[in-house]
Amino acid sequence: MEMAIEEARKAASRGSVPVGALVVSGSQIISSAGNEVIKNSDPTAHAEIIAIRRACRLRNSHILDGCDMYVTLEPCPMCAQAISLARIRRLYFGAYDPKYGGIEHGARIFEHAPHKTEIIGGVLATRCAKILKNFFENKRN
Amino acid sequence: MEMAIEEARKAASRGSVPVGALVVSGSQIISSAGNEVIKNSDPTAHAEIIAIRRACRLRNSHILDGCDMYVTLEPCPMCAQAISLARIRRLYFGAYDPKYGGIEHGARIFEHAPHKTEIIGGVLATRCAKILKNFFENKRN
Repeated sequence: MEMAIEEARKAASRGSVPVGALVVSGSQIISSAGNEVIKNSDPTAHAEIIAIRRACRLRNSHILDGCDMYVTLEPCPMCAQAISLARIRRLYFGAYDPKYGGIEHGARIFEHAPHKTEIIGGVLATRCAKILKNFFENKRN
Repeated sequence: MEMAIEEARKAASRGSVPVGALVVSGSQIISSAGNEVIKNSDPTAHAEIIAIRRACRLRNSHILDGCDMYVTLEPCPMCAQAISLARIRRLYFGAYDPKYGGIEHGARIFEHAPHKTEIIGGVLATRCAKILKNFFENKRN
C-alpha cells in the first residue's frame, strides 16, 4: 500500500485526483498507476483501470488470475466491475468512499459481480484519506 | 442503432462477443467501436469504453456533454458507470441483459450514479439479441 500511496502522490503532483493502484502477483509488482483522467482527457483513466490494462498487456491476457490489487481509495463501480472482469483474486483498498465508492457503498458491485474478489478495506485508511483531503483543500485555496 | 449493429457484426467476424456502440452529437457520429476484449487482451475493452475513449480523445475532453450513446446490449456496471462519468446525455440500448446488465438489472448503476443519463432500453432489441444468440450458438457447434 506504501507504493500505491506513492502513485497517489505522483498523481497529485500532476494535478490529478490522488489515487494510486498496483497489481501484484505474490511479492512481484506487475503494474502501477495513478489517476490520469484530466491529463489523458479520459473519464475511464482511473488508477485501477490503467493498472489492470497495463498488467493485462504485460501478461498478454484479459484475465489476471492469481493477482491482487492495492488501491488507496474504495473503487467506484466502474473500477470494481473491471476488477471483477479481470478476475483479481484479492483487493486491498485504503480509504472508504461513502459518496462515490461502489463496493461498501452505492451500487455494491460484488453483491452482483460474476467473479467474487476477496475484499480487504481500510488498509492505511487514514493516510490514504489524508492525501485526498490535502489535495482538495489546496484546490479550494 | 443500425450502425451499432454493424459494429457488433464486425466484432463477431473478429471472434469477439458481438456488441457495438456509437457516440453521437446530434446527427453527427463522433466515434464507433465493437468489443475488443480478446483481441486487445483487455478486460475493459467493451464497445462502450472504447467508443467513449475515442470520442474523448477527439474532443480533447474527459466529458461528452450533449452527446448520446447507442449500444446493442444493456451495458454492464463498468460501462454504465463510465457512461455516467463521461456525462453522456442519453443512452439508447438494444437487448436487455438480465445476467450481466447493470442498468435495469443487478447493480442498477443509475440509481446511485452522480450523473443521471436518460435511458431508453429495448431499441431494435430482437435484432440486437439475435446477433449475440447466433454468435454463442456457433461457438457451441
